[in-house]
Amino acid sequence: MKGLELIKEGDWILINYDDKRYLKRVNIEHNFSYKKGNIQYKDLIGKPYGIKIGEITIFKPTIEDIILYGINRLTQIVYPKDSFYIASKLNILENDVMLEFGTGSGAASLVFSYLLKESGKLISFEKEERLYKNAKKNIEKFKIYDNITLLNQEFNLKNFQKEFKDLKIDKAFVDIREPNPILNELFDVLKPSANVCFLLPTTNQVIDLLKNIRIYFDSIEVKEILVRNYKIVPERFRPEDIMSAHTAYLIFAKRKLEKG
Amino acid sequence: MKGLELIKEGDWILINYDDKRYLKRVNIEHNFSYKKGNIQYKDLIGKPYGIKIGEITIFKPTIEDIILYGINRLTQIVYPKDSFYIASKLNILENDVMLEFGTGSGAASLVFSYLLKESGKLISFEKEERLYKNAKKNIEKFKIYDNITLLNQEFNLKNFQKEFKDLKIDKAFVDIREPNPILNELFDVLKPSANVCFLLPTTNQVIDLLKNIRIYFDSIEVKEILVRNYKIVPERFRPEDIMSAHTAYLIFAKRKLEKG
Amino acid sequence: MKGLELIKEGDWILINYDDKRYLKRVNIEHNFSYKKGNIQYKDLIGKPYGIKIGEITIFKPTIEDIILYGINRLTQIVYPKDSFYIASKLNILENDVMLEFGTGSGAASLVFSYLLKESGKLISFEKEERLYKNAKKNIEKFKIYDNITLLNQEFNLKNFQKEFKDLKIDKAFVDIREPNPILNELFDVLKPSANVCFLLPTTNQVIDLLKNIRIYFDSIEVKEILVRNYKIVPERFRPEDIMSAHTAYLIFAKRKLEKG
Amino acid sequence: MKGLELIKEGDWILINYDDKRYLKRVNIEHNFSYKKGNIQYKDLIGKPYGIKIGEITIFKPTIEDIILYGINRLTQIVYPKDSFYIASKLNILENDVMLEFGTGSGAASLVFSYLLKESGKLISFEKEERLYKNAKKNIEKFKIYDNITLLNQEFNLKNFQKEFKDLKIDKAFVDIREPNPILNELFDVLKPSANVCFLLPTTNQVIDLLKNIRIYFDSIEVKEILVRNYKIVPERFRPEDIMSAHTAYLIFAKRKLEKG
Repeated sequence: MKGLELIKEGDWILINYDDKRYLKRVNIEHNFSYKKGNIQYKDLIGKPYGIKIGEITIFKPTIEDIILYGINRLTQIVYPKDSFYIASKLNILENDVMLEFGTGSGAASLVFSYLLKESGKLISFEKEERLYKNAKKNIEKFKIYDNITLLNQEFNLKNFQKEFKDLKIDKAFVDIREPNPILNELFDVLKPSANVCFLLPTTNQVIDLLKNIRIYFDSIEVKEILVRNYKIVPERFRPEDIMSAHTAYLIFAKRKLEKG
Repeated sequence: MKGLELIKEGDWILINYDDKRYLKRVNIEHNFSYKKGNIQYKDLIGKPYGIKIGEITIFKPTIEDIILYGINRLTQIVYPKDSFYIASKLNILENDVMLEFGTGSGAASLVFSYLLKESGKLISFEKEERLYKNAKKNIEKFKIYDNITLLNQEFNLKNFQKEFKDLKIDKAFVDIREPNPILNELFDVLKPSANVCFLLPTTNQVIDLLKNIRIYFDSIEVKEILVRNYKIVPERFRPEDIMSAHTAYLIFAKRKLEKG
Repeated sequence: MKGLELIKEGDWILINYDDKRYLKRVNIEHNFSYKKGNIQYKDLIGKPYGIKIGEITIFKPTIEDIILYGINRLTQIVYPKDSFYIASKLNILENDVMLEFGTGSGAASLVFSYLLKESGKLISFEKEERLYKNAKKNIEKFKIYDNITLLNQEFNLKNFQKEFKDLKIDKAFVDIREPNPILNELFDVLKPSANVCFLLPTTNQVIDLLKNIRIYFDSIEVKEILVRNYKIVPERFRPEDIMSAHTAYLIFAKRKLEKG
Repeated sequence: MKGLELIKEGDWILINYDDKRYLKRVNIEHNFSYKKGNIQYKDLIGKPYGIKIGEITIFKPTIEDIILYGINRLTQIVYPKDSFYIASKLNILENDVMLEFGTGSGAASLVFSYLLKESGKLISFEKEERLYKNAKKNIEKFKIYDNITLLNQEFNLKNFQKEFKDLKIDKAFVDIREPNPILNELFDVLKPSANVCFLLPTTNQVIDLLKNIRIYFDSIEVKEILVRNYKIVPERFRPEDIMSAHTAYLIFAKRKLEKG
């Protein structure tokens, strides 16, 4: 049958069981145990995606599944509800060169990479070695395109210009505690009219950023994205009991031609 | 200077004035009037993006700017807060073939097109001629890639198979009033494990869909996306007074291998 | 000192420790143990409210403290965010006679009682004996006024009229799974223009009620109350990570003079 | 018929027409005009509440109706969603003496008055003469109990003690721009364990208050109340399109026995 994709050794698969989801790698020597049974991964090989075995269904994972159930987290990750919005609103295009300040666990990096495609480029800075190493592993495991340059260093304009010549940047995502000290260098490395997003968890940080951002950027917006999930029982349709109330404030802006 | 992009005749530009935004086309014979003045578009040609003239700043528009300020609306559009999330969560990839049921004004079509890139393909059905013609104009004006096939017809499996042979579909977005009658044909045209999203404004519609969806799909999720905007005055940082309280419920699912 | 209220044996007290709250009764034979120590209740007697002992502060409890930390729950209770709004919006006045359908654990009953004062009257129906007995205990423990009549029976107009003569009702709160079957009798027992509130957890229930309510009631409103809590650290002011996403839909209405 | 309350000259009535609400006073010389007709108030006198005349229904107004449709607003009022929660959470009891800082238009004063009943007392300070005069008119028009003392002055401890001797306060509501300067005097006038609420529109104000509040108060909570309204059409049950996104942050606390 056309359109039938078959499960292969080494594939990342999404296991759906009792409305819970697990991201696993097909390894002929391992198996997946759950309350009511056990699946040998070797038995899945050659079977089509979408297959149901007992109470378990096997699907192809999405970028969201990878971020929510796959990556190893050493930090609070950027959740898909935020990174999906950020990536689209930044208007990431093929061929774009994008900077990320604060790789963290690499969750957002993977989303940006997925939108930058083969011809784009993401340069991501993470000063903490522990985080850098973890993000590197996550990205190696789950990347779709070979377009991410991970650097274990704090962003520094002189170093950047030495390494990347006078490369000009199309888009930037800033996920560090204190963005104010880098605003000036960020301005210098961005193309005029470039879109930038800052992610900040507290109102104090947003207030501090808003005090300075107008020198370099215009078209400022501050937003929160809230997702409300519903129970899927048609006879008793209602929201879930609890929801995520806060991840971070998102500040969007566009680089002015001239400072001031 | 490297990275300096210049404004050209025919460009769509985003005019930023007093924290309001306007999407305009550069036409040497026209001008932009605002409360305190007037700009001749011909004076902008050859100037760099990001430029400030008086109280006005000119930026390159994003896909969001196009949807919010550019397209002509004959229907309630799919807002970027929803379409950005849908597009990313559907995991739209290059080379994907995607179906859209209910083109409406083409707002979501443009977002999907932008993620499908040159190598992907969107086939979008709109039965109302008035809407089809309007969407066609919007898409011709604002498309980035040549990957959209707009059809002024209701989806019909037999016709589809005649026209597109046994083309199998990777992703689908369904934005029609009554999705239940097409579930069976939708199942037939989708690849197993394909991601699908239904957009429905009322709880009654969601309840009706949830009653039938499990036959064909699994990994069901129902979500609402809420965006809260903040005033950008650093001395009085607080949310805007009012917000959009509802656009639609989003139902996500994955196509099973076999019905039942 | 004037205004100094002293802790007495038998008092319900609110113990505040490390931003957590506990409702306890002062009993000379017992004590309160916590991570870093132990307080003998007998040592509190004669001390003023507001007193701090080690890391613990003792306050007079409010009706909210009683509901959140005091009553024994055999059901999902009506949370103060909802019952405070309901009670005020029903415009409960002294001398009012109010009906409650579905006592549950008595959480809402206590709030209504507190607004009805000594001269008002709450008649509350609970058909399940287990719930009735538990609510009775909660109310005996925590009531401020002697204005609650708890009945272990389903509401029945004939019985009601036999027992309460032709008593006419000023306000009603309906917290039962299927309100439609009682609408007609509810109409008969209410004064014209009486305010009523229905509490329903699912959209299906709301839809069913809205289909019938117009025959008997007018000025219909459906509302959800959401409370977002914030972390109280001034250097990092931000919302809590999670919040309650749903308790119930509240339907408010006013009784028409005539049916139809 | 028992329970039938009749409309009298001078009554405030709630007119319900096409799901819109109007608060009017019955005046034999006036009438109510609407799109499809006209009602002479004199024709209403002696008729029962709940009556329907043409497409109009007449109800007895609630405290909420008075605040939303009755009072003359010279300021942003405290909305019922907030004042109902505040009043109940402050645990206002009969016999309580309560302070209000910032009468504004008197909307919250009326709610507090309604809970304090005949035996309680509200002392409310408003320094702006214009607001004081307007609030006075609103309160005279709509008060239920004679328990409000309005003062056209800024709160000052010495003056207060001269006028009210050593009266100690049970509950306080603070709705002024800068509460920090009054915290010390507020502490001095409150009973230990007294409940207090501060209403502040911006995060900056909340941050400033949180820096100082711990000296005087404990059991701090910061909350936002959000109300989501639904359309009442049973065939298309869904939230309203827009909602109020922000009125103010509410800060609740309890007075410590001793400062520090």
